[in-house]
Amino acid sequence: MSIPARTTEVIGILGGMGPAATADFYAKLVSITPGASDQDHLRTVIWSDPTIPDRTEALLGKGPDPTPWLLDGGRVLREAGATVIAIPCNTAHAFVPRIADHVGLPIVHMIGEVARYLTSLSPRIHTVGLLATAGTVRAGLYQEWLGRSGIHLVLPDNASQDHEVMTAIRKVKAGTRDDTTTALLTRAARRLTARGAQAVIAGCTEIPLGLSADAVDVPLVDPALILARALVSRAGADRTAR
Amino acid sequence: MSIPARTTEVIGILGGMGPAATADFYAKLVSITPGASDQDHLRTVIWSDPTIPDRTEALLGKGPDPTPWLLDGGRVLREAGATVIAIPCNTAHAFVPRIADHVGLPIVHMIGEVARYLTSLSPRIHTVGLLATAGTVRAGLYQEWLGRSGIHLVLPDNASQDHEVMTAIRKVKAGTRDDTTTALLTRAARRLTARGAQAVIAGCTEIPLGLSADAVDVPLVDPALILARALVSRAGADRTAR
Repeated sequence: MSIPARTTEVIGILGGMGPAATADFYAKLVSITPGASDQDHLRTVIWSDPTIPDRTEALLGKGPDPTPWLLDGGRVLREAGATVIAIPCNTAHAFVPRIADHVGLPIVHMIGEVARYLTSLSPRIHTVGLLATAGTVRAGLYQEWLGRSGIHLVLPDNASQDHEVMTAIRKVKAGTRDDTTTALLTRAARRLTARGAQAVIAGCTEIPLGLSADAVDVPLVDPALILARALVSRAGADRTAR
Repeated sequence: MSIPARTTEVIGILGGMGPAATADFYAKLVSITPGASDQDHLRTVIWSDPTIPDRTEALLGKGPDPTPWLLDGGRVLREAGATVIAIPCNTAHAFVPRIADHVGLPIVHMIGEVARYLTSLSPRIHTVGLLATAGTVRAGLYQEWLGRSGIHLVLPDNASQDHEVMTAIRKVKAGTRDDTTTALLTRAARRLTARGAQAVIAGCTEIPLGLSADAVDVPLVDPALILARALVSRAGADRTAR
């Protein structure tokens, strides 16, 4: 190879779902990568395709299947030299089983990493709340991964899911987030802690853009940050103890 | 093409110089793109290669020429389907003449766009200050583009350039920006306004990360934002009046 690098890993980010969350994810990846100069950072290729059909609409049977777009993005990343793929969109993980065998690269599974993180905590967490899109909830992604680890999941009731969580997510996607967005998400999160959640998963990459960790009195788990840490660790660039 | 899109433009970002500035640039591009849903945004491919040798070091004759890395990144972007290239690094523009004929795609020239923006202002601006890397200053990039438009450029003296501007830029690149970083850049900017600058160009993509617009009492011009606007405008996605 003509270009020397400290690691041969090239991070591939399959993004655009949404684009603001992709920008936020890359900023997180950069900020947690230890290093004193540009050259200590990881080579990264990002395919940000906001035209990928809405994942929740597809899972609710109301829109086209995004699988062909995801496969196309995976191909672009592989051809660009990526050695691993990260998908900073929770709902898109419902389609990972359809693309995993075809992209030709390992996919670091964001929801699997969250499950691994939660089971590593001490004292042990037994009940976790989830703020996510209707698509992620319907696809049962967190139910499946956390269920395997014996962690009980608390979900918003239908009214909170529709009128608080989804309304807030749409506002962030539309670039119109404001104090109302934060209020909606805070209210939804507090309903979950009132029902025993010892931590709340910000299970849509748009949610941390509208809800800060201080707004809830239990840990707010950011899957994008956990995914970023998993990538840094994998690339062997994680030279400092976290 | 199998994937329909509202515009055929695919933005190619040749980044990683530094990576935090690339993340910030993409966030700016997303935030100024008008649209109410993910699908209104522009398809974007980002090649973020922080291993590209330091541009300032090369221009000062102290490090390797980054041209081969830039050509390689341009090839990745073209093969990924990009239709236009943006380079969110001022200093890297010193190497644009060496790559422009070889990348096979138009490059939207950030410094050219800044010059165009400054000459469009009313009332007319005659004197502009520049905060940039030693490499950008040495390469005479802003001197050349603004000179053509009859705009006089005020530069920091050597002490301010070395001990204020470059020190602050290195802190941002190292991820160790703090109040001192802001203080250094504010002081350097005020020295320029004291010498008659009617606006100050934050002429290194790291500078807006360490200096806010309120810190100086003249307009702070962010070339990354101007480049982002030029891309949105070019893609025809700019459906609202600015």
